[in-house]
This record gives sequence, structure tokens and C-alpha cells, in this order.
Amino acid sequence: MNEVSVLAPASVSNVVCGYDCLGFALAEPFDEMTVRKIEEPTVRIVHHDGFDLPLEPEKNVAGVALLSMIRAANLDFGFEVEMTKHIKPGSGIGSSAASACGAVVAANRILGERFSKLDLAAFAMEGEFLASGARHADNVAPCLFGGFTLVRSIEPLDIVSLEFPRLYATVIHPQIEIKTAEARAMLPKEVLLKDAVRQWGNLGAFVAALAKCDYELLGRSMTDLIVEPVRKALIPRFDELKAASISVGAIGGGISGSGPSVFMLSRSPEGASKIADAMQEVYAPTGIDFKVYSSEISTDGVTII
Amino acid sequence: MNEVSVLAPASVSNVVCGYDCLGFALAEPFDEMTVRKIEEPTVRIVHHDGFDLPLEPEKNVAGVALLSMIRAANLDFGFEVEMTKHIKPGSGIGSSAASACGAVVAANRILGERFSKLDLAAFAMEGEFLASGARHADNVAPCLFGGFTLVRSIEPLDIVSLEFPRLYATVIHPQIEIKTAEARAMLPKEVLLKDAVRQWGNLGAFVAALAKCDYELLGRSMTDLIVEPVRKALIPRFDELKAASISVGAIGGGISGSGPSVFMLSRSPEGASKIADAMQEVYAPTGIDFKVYSSEISTDGVTII
Repeated sequence: MNEVSVLAPASVSNVVCGYDCLGFALAEPFDEMTVRKIEEPTVRIVHHDGFDLPLEPEKNVAGVALLSMIRAANLDFGFEVEMTKHIKPGSGIGSSAASACGAVVAANRILGERFSKLDLAAFAMEGEFLASGARHADNVAPCLFGGFTLVRSIEPLDIVSLEFPRLYATVIHPQIEIKTAEARAMLPKEVLLKDAVRQWGNLGAFVAALAKCDYELLGRSMTDLIVEPVRKALIPRFDELKAASISVGAIGGGISGSGPSVFMLSRSPEGASKIADAMQEVYAPTGIDFKVYSSEISTDGVTII
Repeated sequence: MNEVSVLAPASVSNVVCGYDCLGFALAEPFDEMTVRKIEEPTVRIVHHDGFDLPLEPEKNVAGVALLSMIRAANLDFGFEVEMTKHIKPGSGIGSSAASACGAVVAANRILGERFSKLDLAAFAMEGEFLASGARHADNVAPCLFGGFTLVRSIEPLDIVSLEFPRLYATVIHPQIEIKTAEARAMLPKEVLLKDAVRQWGNLGAFVAALAKCDYELLGRSMTDLIVEPVRKALIPRFDELKAASISVGAIGGGISGSGPSVFMLSRSPEGASKIADAMQEVYAPTGIDFKVYSSEISTDGVTII
């Protein structure tokens, strides 16, 4: 097999109570990618989208992920990647993770599934490092494994697929720019032990609530004492978005990744669509361009088509 | 009903990765307690054990728990508590929680179950405050609810019963004294955000592992970057106890509460008993008196007999 096409889903990381470790995959939006074998042991990038992303492989997240894979496999050939991205870079719903994961899943199929998903996650994390200056896997994990994932450890890499009930997400993407690296720099280096304990309680309860299908506990657990209070200043009308969503039945929600996207969870497609309406009502008067997505939490990660 | 007798179990809190929020109940040891109605709206304490605990209700953990219950219910009568404690105070396996929880569960039966378990937990926490100077529920919760519990929040109090597979605990109690208040004072007030994130990952993975019956993940999750490295200095041969237990098949383990007891988890009674032997071998040459308990993790909290 010399050519493989994949769909790579958007994902929501942090999920309010799981900064840098929790994430889930969306059914949409997703990127379309085709990877094909080329003779030279290098990577060629072709973008069929208007995002003006760098084409030099060393500066492209899919490129660096594939380069690290080529090195690890010691290949004497390389890959061309054709990408049609629908997940806007900088939207906070795992655009870079989708590029990196899509590329390595497709290339791995060409290599006869030589690498495990955990190996692929490590390659994709090189792309995340390029994008954000930090090695993190909280978007890579759901993008590859689907569903809700927890990154127990980065070193060694340990990813846990969580049990979860049927859930829907509504995401609003205000078209403003937040650089992940800057959003990281805002955070304190140290936190109070007592606040850390409260976050342990919330994260543990969130995982338990997913397993028990306890939607009320899920909602109570989605609180964040550490990251949200600092970063919400970057997102116009964040508190209003949240209040409006909760008032029409959202289980809970908050900043997706480092923003600017904001997500809310709900129990049904109808619930997700009501939240979409409520979000639009909050944002329409702002004059800020925005997009709203409603989607089931996908059990699938990157899918070969 | 004017007299109720209960058994109140020992419990293990913190459980390595869940400082101040995670805990589980042991099947043994347990305290035996009888509570009876008395005419005066006060509390009388009778101890049938040799632990020399204070008998003034304001200085006794069962006493203060009952006094706060009497105030909340605005009773014009009181309670006498007869206690035969088998859980040694200061052992680090929830001796004070057992006294406080046993007393309030028995008194609540006399009151016709007027209060919810969550109410009872709040009363019992008054006892914990007396014992340790901190309002915490990580022993109270498993002692009342049984099984594995997570305290999501103290204010408002939110306790989550976790799903868990059959598990056994081996506990060694070296007969040395560690004051909970002092063990708390050793801890840093602040922790690095990156360490907090690693602990979120471990706690989330621990909860997921219990729900998925994934014993290997359970073991990997039982690591603690924040509390154990500081407190283990209080427990002679801590590292040897852990290594010896792991070498005979323990899933994982660490300090119980603030110590000095050390617990290890295993999958079978035979496993628990092998660990007991291994612990004894480590401690026998030290000259320090010790007791070892092996017990299934109990699904029951305080039991009315």
C-alpha cells in the first residue's frame, strides 16, 4: 500500500478539571489527509486549504511528526502529505494534533502497522512541541484513541481510554487569536496544595461520573480553580457563554484547550443544538466572527478511509 | 429504639495518589460501640479499652461529633457512648474517623434516621477537626459509605462512592507515634503546577483503573510526587517495605493516611498474606513493635449490629 487517506478529528483538551491530561474527540470538524510514499527519505507537504501553514517539513506539525517517525523506523524512503484542513489552526480544538496524528496514522498503515498507537502518540507529540513549545498529549491522545482519554504520564507515555456514556459537545470558536505558548505563560508555576487537592477531587469525580453515567456529578466536577480563572480573560463574554449554556441545560463546560474555543457538554443532540442557539445569541451582538459546532463525542480517533 | 450497637471499620486515606480526597474501608480492624439515649442533652463517654482517650465530650472525637449532631437536631436529650476501640489511635488507619462515624450512625438510628449519610459525614468531620486540626473527610467517607470513596469537595461536602473490583489490603502498623497535625505541617503549602498535573493524571487513572478492573494501571497510578517523598522519612524502612511487598506481587501501596501505617493492595487473600509475611520479614529485625492486618476492602461502612 503506497497511499492512505484518513480523517483526523478535532478534540477538546483540559476539559475544565483536567488541565494537561484530559481530552475528548469530536465527530466534527475533521481534517482530510492523504499520505503517499515517496522515494526520498524526507517529507513533502501540500496544503489544499487557505490557512497559509508552513510547507517546510521542519516547520510543519505533520512534517515533524513524520520526520521523527522516519528516523525511528530508519526508513530509506519518505512521505508526501496532502492536507485539506477544516480545523482552523489556533482554534483551541486540537488543529495541530489532528495534522500530526492524521499523518502518522496514515504513514503507519503504509508501513504495515509497524508502530503501536502509543508510539504514534509520541511521534505526534513532536508536532505539538513545535506548535506550542510544550510536549503534551492531551489532544493527541483523544485524536488517536477516540472518546475520552486521560494522559496519566508523559514520561513514560501512559494513555488511558476512559469509559463514558453518550455525550454531545457544542463548541463555539470565536475568531480571535490566542497563542498556546502565551496562554501557557499566563499560568502560575506553582499552585496552592489545597487548590491542587480540590482539583484532584474534581478530576477523580469526573472520571468516576463518566464511568457511572452520573451527569449531575459530571457537571459538579467541571470546575477549575487554577486555569480557567486566569485564561477566561482572553475570551470575550466567557462567563455569559457559560451561564447561557447552563441555563438551557448544559451539563457543564469551559475553555477548550487554551482557547479561544469554548465547549459545553450535553446529553442529547437536541440539548447540543439548544446550547448552540444560546451561544449564538451571546456572540451575535459582539461583532466578533464565530463558528459553532455541535457533535457527538466520537468513539473514533483518526479513521482510515 | 433507645440503644444501638455498631461496628466501625478502619480505613486507609490518601491511597498514595489521592492526598486528602481518596480513601477505602477495611473489613478489619474495627471498633465496637454502643450508643444509648440519656435524659440530659449532653454526651457521656465510656471507654472499655486501654487507650487512655479523653472522656470529656468536648475533647473526645466521638463526643464532639455527637455534640454537633445534638445541636443540629436541637435535641432535649443526649447520648451515652460505650466504646471498645480496637483501632489504635494514631495508627494512621482512621481511628478517629471510626469513633466519630460509629457514634453518629448509631445515634442517627436512635433518631429514626433523621440525617442523611452526608449530614453524618459533616458531624463526624468535627471529630476529625478535633483530632488533626483540619476538616477533612478522606477517612470519614469510606468509614461511613464503605468501599473506595472520593471526596470531591469539602465545602459543599460532596462524596463519591467509586466502583471497584475485589481487592485486598495488607497493613503494617509500626508502633511509633506520628501526629497527624505534624505530618500535615511537613507538607509544602505550594506545589509545582507540573507536579500537580502529574498527580491529576495519576488520580484520574486510579479511578479509571478501579472502574475497569485494570490492576496494572492501578499499580502504575499509585505514585505520589508530593506527599510520600516528604513523609516517608517518618517511617523506618518505608522503601524496603514497599520493595519487599512489590516483589511478592503487591499491586502498589504506600503510607496510610499520615502514617505510620503502610498499606499494600493485592488481588487475592493469598496475595495479601504473602505481603504480610514480606512486611514482617522487613520489620522483625528492627526491634520496633508492629502489627500486620490483612483484610478485604470492605463494601460496608459502619454496620449496625
